[in-house]
Amino acid sequence: MLRIAIDMDDVLAYSAQKAVNAFIAEHGFGPTMQELQGKHLKDTVPPEYQEKIVSYFYQKGFLRDVDLIEDSQEVVRRLYEKHEVFIVSAAMEMPYSLEDKYFWLEEHFPFIHWKRIVFCGDKSIIDADVLIDDRAYNFDKFAGRPLLFTAHHNLDIQGYERVNNWKEVAGLLL
Amino acid sequence: MLRIAIDMDDVLAYSAQKAVNAFIAEHGFGPTMQELQGKHLKDTVPPEYQEKIVSYFYQKGFLRDVDLIEDSQEVVRRLYEKHEVFIVSAAMEMPYSLEDKYFWLEEHFPFIHWKRIVFCGDKSIIDADVLIDDRAYNFDKFAGRPLLFTAHHNLDIQGYERVNNWKEVAGLLL
Repeated sequence: MLRIAIDMDDVLAYSAQKAVNAFIAEHGFGPTMQELQGKHLKDTVPPEYQEKIVSYFYQKGFLRDVDLIEDSQEVVRRLYEKHEVFIVSAAMEMPYSLEDKYFWLEEHFPFIHWKRIVFCGDKSIIDADVLIDDRAYNFDKFAGRPLLFTAHHNLDIQGYERVNNWKEVAGLLL
Repeated sequence: MLRIAIDMDDVLAYSAQKAVNAFIAEHGFGPTMQELQGKHLKDTVPPEYQEKIVSYFYQKGFLRDVDLIEDSQEVVRRLYEKHEVFIVSAAMEMPYSLEDKYFWLEEHFPFIHWKRIVFCGDKSIIDADVLIDDRAYNFDKFAGRPLLFTAHHNLDIQGYERVNNWKEVAGLLL
């Protein structure tokens, strides 16, 4: 049995995609999903809009109804049965997202006990065997096995074991 | 430099005492501070009121204005300058307390960066050198040095290095 820590934004939930949709709805323009690939979210819009497109994450309610990434529910459920799974989200930068994230997890991953949820800032304090995350900087001080979950902003990052989707996670850990 | 994890309720904040005060204000009776000593909060009231006296912690807003424990601000500030301090609260059982706890910390411990705040359930995932906590069960799977912070409910607990107040913490870690 492994202790597996799993990130939320852009690993379980299409958070960046929701920000793009909100931006387009508000401004009438914005990146296509194809234009998002290979870029950080803020780099998909002109400089004067960069602050705006990342500001959605700080709004209360925004992350409450974000879409699920394909197969995340089913694979996390099976991982939860076999391993010691924790959800570990760097939510603390966005304090108004804390409740949204908790109740989103309760809705979509009702089998996850509250004891297995961690909202933190710096993930260096997390002691786990595996960390599934889309942000490579979370691996800097991580002693376990890092699995870089492919997301639009990390396509060019090298040097980490990569998982492109939840089916690949299942293949490695189930 | 040590990585020091510090609990919140009944370590930084007089949370149980606020519940007692709220209970007395609502019901017209309740334990004195002296009667609280040596007991768990719920055991200070008749059985039919036990659920009630612990229910305050689940109410939004309740933990937003709880009183500080003596010397906690000053000693944590000095620890923060010398060590790698994280605040680690098992807040996840009470999701409506998450924002309250965050903004309470922001008000009373403004020097603590959001990266150093962790709201979790089971603290076994925390990797630190020292854990200052009033709940001995949080030490069960903790590999570092546990410091049992004296609180009303743990007076009879044996077998742990104990700190009775923040001055004693300063004496040990500064």
